[in-house]
Amino acid sequence: MTQYTPNAPYSAREKLRTLPPELISSADYARMASAFIDLPTLEYIRGGSGKELTLARNNSAFDAIEIYPRLLRDCTQGHTRSQLLGHVFRHPILLAPVAAQKLVHPEGEIASARAAELLDTGFVCSTLASTTLESVAQELSGNKWFQLYLQPKREDSVKLIQRAQAAGYQAIVITLDAPIQPLSQRAQRAGFVLPSFAAPINLQHFTAPAQVALRADDSIIFQGMMREAPSLADIQWLQTQTQLPIIAKGVLHPDDALQLKAIGIAAIIVSNHGGRSLDGAPASIAALPAIRAALGKDFPLLIDGGIRTGSDIFKALALGANAVLIGRPRVYALAVAGTLGVAHLLKLLRDELETCMALAGCATLADINDAAIYQPAKAQ
Amino acid sequence: MTQYTPNAPYSAREKLRTLPPELISSADYARMASAFIDLPTLEYIRGGSGKELTLARNNSAFDAIEIYPRLLRDCTQGHTRSQLLGHVFRHPILLAPVAAQKLVHPEGEIASARAAELLDTGFVCSTLASTTLESVAQELSGNKWFQLYLQPKREDSVKLIQRAQAAGYQAIVITLDAPIQPLSQRAQRAGFVLPSFAAPINLQHFTAPAQVALRADDSIIFQGMMREAPSLADIQWLQTQTQLPIIAKGVLHPDDALQLKAIGIAAIIVSNHGGRSLDGAPASIAALPAIRAALGKDFPLLIDGGIRTGSDIFKALALGANAVLIGRPRVYALAVAGTLGVAHLLKLLRDELETCMALAGCATLADINDAAIYQPAKAQ
Amino acid sequence: MTQYTPNAPYSAREKLRTLPPELISSADYARMASAFIDLPTLEYIRGGSGKELTLARNNSAFDAIEIYPRLLRDCTQGHTRSQLLGHVFRHPILLAPVAAQKLVHPEGEIASARAAELLDTGFVCSTLASTTLESVAQELSGNKWFQLYLQPKREDSVKLIQRAQAAGYQAIVITLDAPIQPLSQRAQRAGFVLPSFAAPINLQHFTAPAQVALRADDSIIFQGMMREAPSLADIQWLQTQTQLPIIAKGVLHPDDALQLKAIGIAAIIVSNHGGRSLDGAPASIAALPAIRAALGKDFPLLIDGGIRTGSDIFKALALGANAVLIGRPRVYALAVAGTLGVAHLLKLLRDELETCMALAGCATLADINDAAIYQPAKAQ
Amino acid sequence: MTQYTPNAPYSAREKLRTLPPELISSADYARMASAFIDLPTLEYIRGGSGKELTLARNNSAFDAIEIYPRLLRDCTQGHTRSQLLGHVFRHPILLAPVAAQKLVHPEGEIASARAAELLDTGFVCSTLASTTLESVAQELSGNKWFQLYLQPKREDSVKLIQRAQAAGYQAIVITLDAPIQPLSQRAQRAGFVLPSFAAPINLQHFTAPAQVALRADDSIIFQGMMREAPSLADIQWLQTQTQLPIIAKGVLHPDDALQLKAIGIAAIIVSNHGGRSLDGAPASIAALPAIRAALGKDFPLLIDGGIRTGSDIFKALALGANAVLIGRPRVYALAVAGTLGVAHLLKLLRDELETCMALAGCATLADINDAAIYQPAKAQ
Repeated sequence: MTQYTPNAPYSAREKLRTLPPELISSADYARMASAFIDLPTLEYIRGGSGKELTLARNNSAFDAIEIYPRLLRDCTQGHTRSQLLGHVFRHPILLAPVAAQKLVHPEGEIASARAAELLDTGFVCSTLASTTLESVAQELSGNKWFQLYLQPKREDSVKLIQRAQAAGYQAIVITLDAPIQPLSQRAQRAGFVLPSFAAPINLQHFTAPAQVALRADDSIIFQGMMREAPSLADIQWLQTQTQLPIIAKGVLHPDDALQLKAIGIAAIIVSNHGGRSLDGAPASIAALPAIRAALGKDFPLLIDGGIRTGSDIFKALALGANAVLIGRPRVYALAVAGTLGVAHLLKLLRDELETCMALAGCATLADINDAAIYQPAKAQ
Repeated sequence: MTQYTPNAPYSAREKLRTLPPELISSADYARMASAFIDLPTLEYIRGGSGKELTLARNNSAFDAIEIYPRLLRDCTQGHTRSQLLGHVFRHPILLAPVAAQKLVHPEGEIASARAAELLDTGFVCSTLASTTLESVAQELSGNKWFQLYLQPKREDSVKLIQRAQAAGYQAIVITLDAPIQPLSQRAQRAGFVLPSFAAPINLQHFTAPAQVALRADDSIIFQGMMREAPSLADIQWLQTQTQLPIIAKGVLHPDDALQLKAIGIAAIIVSNHGGRSLDGAPASIAALPAIRAALGKDFPLLIDGGIRTGSDIFKALALGANAVLIGRPRVYALAVAGTLGVAHLLKLLRDELETCMALAGCATLADINDAAIYQPAKAQ
Repeated sequence: MTQYTPNAPYSAREKLRTLPPELISSADYARMASAFIDLPTLEYIRGGSGKELTLARNNSAFDAIEIYPRLLRDCTQGHTRSQLLGHVFRHPILLAPVAAQKLVHPEGEIASARAAELLDTGFVCSTLASTTLESVAQELSGNKWFQLYLQPKREDSVKLIQRAQAAGYQAIVITLDAPIQPLSQRAQRAGFVLPSFAAPINLQHFTAPAQVALRADDSIIFQGMMREAPSLADIQWLQTQTQLPIIAKGVLHPDDALQLKAIGIAAIIVSNHGGRSLDGAPASIAALPAIRAALGKDFPLLIDGGIRTGSDIFKALALGANAVLIGRPRVYALAVAGTLGVAHLLKLLRDELETCMALAGCATLADINDAAIYQPAKAQ
Repeated sequence: MTQYTPNAPYSAREKLRTLPPELISSADYARMASAFIDLPTLEYIRGGSGKELTLARNNSAFDAIEIYPRLLRDCTQGHTRSQLLGHVFRHPILLAPVAAQKLVHPEGEIASARAAELLDTGFVCSTLASTTLESVAQELSGNKWFQLYLQPKREDSVKLIQRAQAAGYQAIVITLDAPIQPLSQRAQRAGFVLPSFAAPINLQHFTAPAQVALRADDSIIFQGMMREAPSLADIQWLQTQTQLPIIAKGVLHPDDALQLKAIGIAAIIVSNHGGRSLDGAPASIAALPAIRAALGKDFPLLIDGGIRTGSDIFKALALGANAVLIGRPRVYALAVAGTLGVAHLLKLLRDELETCMALAGCATLADINDAAIYQPAKAQ
């Protein structure tokens, strides 16, 4: 195994080039990552908002869901393919939009994208990537979406989506749940500051809007930050600026889901921003069933938050998702072993999903539904 | 950062004059306070009655409540103002009545009052303050209430409320839930005794009532302490002695709330005395919804007990409170950094509340109701 | 404070003659007792059967019950007296039958009985006492009951109840739930053996019945021990042998309670033998409400198992008990400080009960009922 | 006590020839076994699949079930005999099929079988035994079943069942829940590899089937391993190959149970493969009641998974099982003390079961039903 120095600056640390045999789950990558990431950055990645109540729930909620094993089903024609927004996905897994990936690996988003390409996995490029969206796109022959944080100036948002469209991205994922997103308390305590090498390069020539002077009685939250929060009008305007399908990310309430469907949003991602936005929000998997029920069975619906194993993916699909997005786990894998690590993680997740499907008697994604979920109340 | 000596007598310890960056939540003040308060006093402050079952529930009950994030709501006109008993409150937070604040800071209640004044926060002065109620009142141009423990002699109670009225207090908060309030077991074990510098100065010229001799079979509880317990007649008498609105503190049962409303009490504070009275009582937040339901939606209702973050305030408002009172957290902040600490804590709580409101899509307090609370039963 | 040597043989250890200030709850006695009792004996006392599931539930079930504080109730005429089987009890607390009390104190049952006498507390003398039942009775001018394990020979049972009647005991408590009662695993592992100084002196002249030879296929449980198990016929026979009221101890199922009531049993004690009989049995407090419901409101009903504080006594009364019995806590108090310890413990429990009653607005035992119990379901 | 060397290769370690007094429960064997088994093998035995969620549930689900003690029942004619598939069982306990028992003891399955013979306990011989099925059968004069993993070539499966029938096995137990069964993560991390001395000797002359080439897009799960998964047709074919009753092992869903009953399966074993197959599956005891309800009261139904005490056996019977199978505990007992250990463990379990029955007032297995299970909802 390649040597590595714990807690040295990431640039001085060599990433693993071969994978030790104890790396057999996403939890292993999370544990090992602490030797490959400096503490402030690690705290930035792992932290959630407030008391991290939602962060903890994202995981525990999955663990509490139980699946029925089923017997004697023919799975020899099994596969994990599906269609989403008119494209074929090899398996229902995408890499979630994650900012500033150079924080943990010199090649940052490029290394992640290469792993996605190797495993035929969908990739969502963040507005806050530390690599140009065009370079990322070049690595990806398959499914790729661009995640948009609306910019203070509409012209800047337009520039971003035009570049994304030109680079071949197939959809715009607009993030709605983080108009305010303070650093986690653990990141603050560790003194995390975004270093320049991981700055959002895609925004580098944008100028700040004219400063708005707050009056004495004004709130920095309401009259300050929330001026930039996405509105319904913003989304409707965005729809006039692009032919790409627009996907809304960050939905937890069924009424918000219905409103977005009503205005023609192409797909919805159930998310609590990985526990980094409203602390106290329910686990995203807990919120999923009511949203699926509201939207009906055919509306494209994805989820992120707390997915750590292939069984978690199965549970999300059984409760109504069409696909899932993976956030922190692939950052840890990236930190440990770059493209190799992320590709290996995706392979582990896919194998775990297929194993879970086979043991639950589901040969295809279409076979997975809530009849697979054990309900104690019904059983007793 | 100012140097401080852990566990030296408080008078020998300098308070912080600048705030270290790791102080970013009320929990941080609670942790740091142990270096600024001698152990017996710390145990006195943090302790609850009996096995501290209620003390623990006050916090855990808030953590178990989940809030829906909501999207695309216009919050640019947002604020946290409301009217309570005919007065405008800048935000729905008051400093709860806390006895003997000189225990943790030489300036005691004065330092707390200055913080309230700086942050435009309501202040409730305790009967057992270690500073004269008039000195406290002079620091406060805004909302101030006086908390009354009924005195053994009615003439003494009258003196207190006349002084309070003269000093400009706008309401009398009568505490009903602590006719018996032994020291917590941890305070007893640590040998806590109230030092003379923190004695209840507002009661200093009151003479004790004639001693009542107990018979052999009498109970020191029933025939002793409970003779001084407030009765309905006491409250009705109190109503004849002052034009100020009277607020009843310490209600957990809806029937008690209804009885108090029926006799013309102006407002009610749901409270279990911070877990310092009946051990085994429910968390105050758990008791709140039934009380709001009993009183109807317009009756002024406040709550204390376990509120540690702005999200907790939001949850209390969503479940029926008009405002909340903060007890232990501001004592810790006072111990660490005096006025600066308390003002900073209030700022943190206010910012957290506004952030929570914005992310939950509530621009004003009037927008906060129980539709914001996630209900697993409905979602599945 | 008197010196004591931890873990020396109990006879070499002096008991406390004055009480240190940190002894303020039954939990304190439990903790301190480990310095006054040798390990095998301590394990014998604290242990429960099997995995100690029931032992753990006995305590946790009380902690989970919540009580409403009530306001403005007149408690100045309060007391804890009640009538039980025609006798007045000063408070609803009895010392449970506990075997072999000389294990932890040279004066054994005598020291306990003196404490009961001092505090006017009911006393139940065990068949397996290490002191003659007559000596115990001499210390007790008030309520005293004799606990009977049916003896293999009926003539021996008759001798015991005749002696008890002659000594002034007012009732026979027949224990029904422990036909098999192996040592706890922890007592076995610690090598506990009952020493001769704590042997059941009241049984000393009884001769063993003729040995029954088991056949190869016989079970030592069914064809062995269960031959001695009490039967309905045994109880009916017992009723013909004494005019004293007979109380059945060890009931957890409502149907068993009804059967016992039907044959004229005078009172019932809900009990799981302190978690020392069937491991897996529910907490006795959990079983209480259904038994009260089955028996109707006037039938004399007591409970033991897990009562550690005055609030626990209140909860038991609110859920249907007329009185409670105290087991392990008074053994620990006996070990620490003999009569002084047990009397102090009883005083603590009584004061805690009165405080709880006063804060819950109950002046007398008759005021305590299940309306005092907080029900989350009703509140939301 | 015989000396033993912790963590030496098993062959160098002497097994216990006498039992130390601290060995009084299956948990004691589990603890002590770590001194008799090398770490990789220990991890292989104790591990479960994935995050071991199901493994943990198997135990905790039993602990949460509560049993009513019952009084005054005549148990002097008590016994634990029952009929199953036309054979008398002395008690409702069988040794579950466990692979490769030479891993922990040089005599492997022979030592286990001798213990079963001594205690008149049913024995299920695994396809993956490290001893020939004929040698095992020779030790067993009583109930013995042969567990079958379907072989890739049907002719090999036929050879196995013909040998089993010739050796006197009375039933074929076909395992259906483990078409995929990866090593647990802990076994992988510890580097476990099956040593040759514990290889599946009964399969030694079978040749591997022709390798199937996977296409690039094929899944090693679906198009690889699942080709060998048992199908309904396989079972129906198996029924034509033997007169022995066929028992299906690994059922958790009532519909699967019904399907197996419909095709004439003789008995069903509720099992999640000891938490070694689908991680996330419910505890087998949690799944049992619905399966019993689906099958009706007379269909032969067994269960394994998490049974560690006689009370657990009682709970399983009360919730619908006719008998239980014991897996890991007897492997630990085998490792510690060979035949002596396993026989002792079986004696402990039987005595615990009889004690539980006696205290729950059940003289025979026919008396055990779900009325013995405490239901909080009914009680309050």
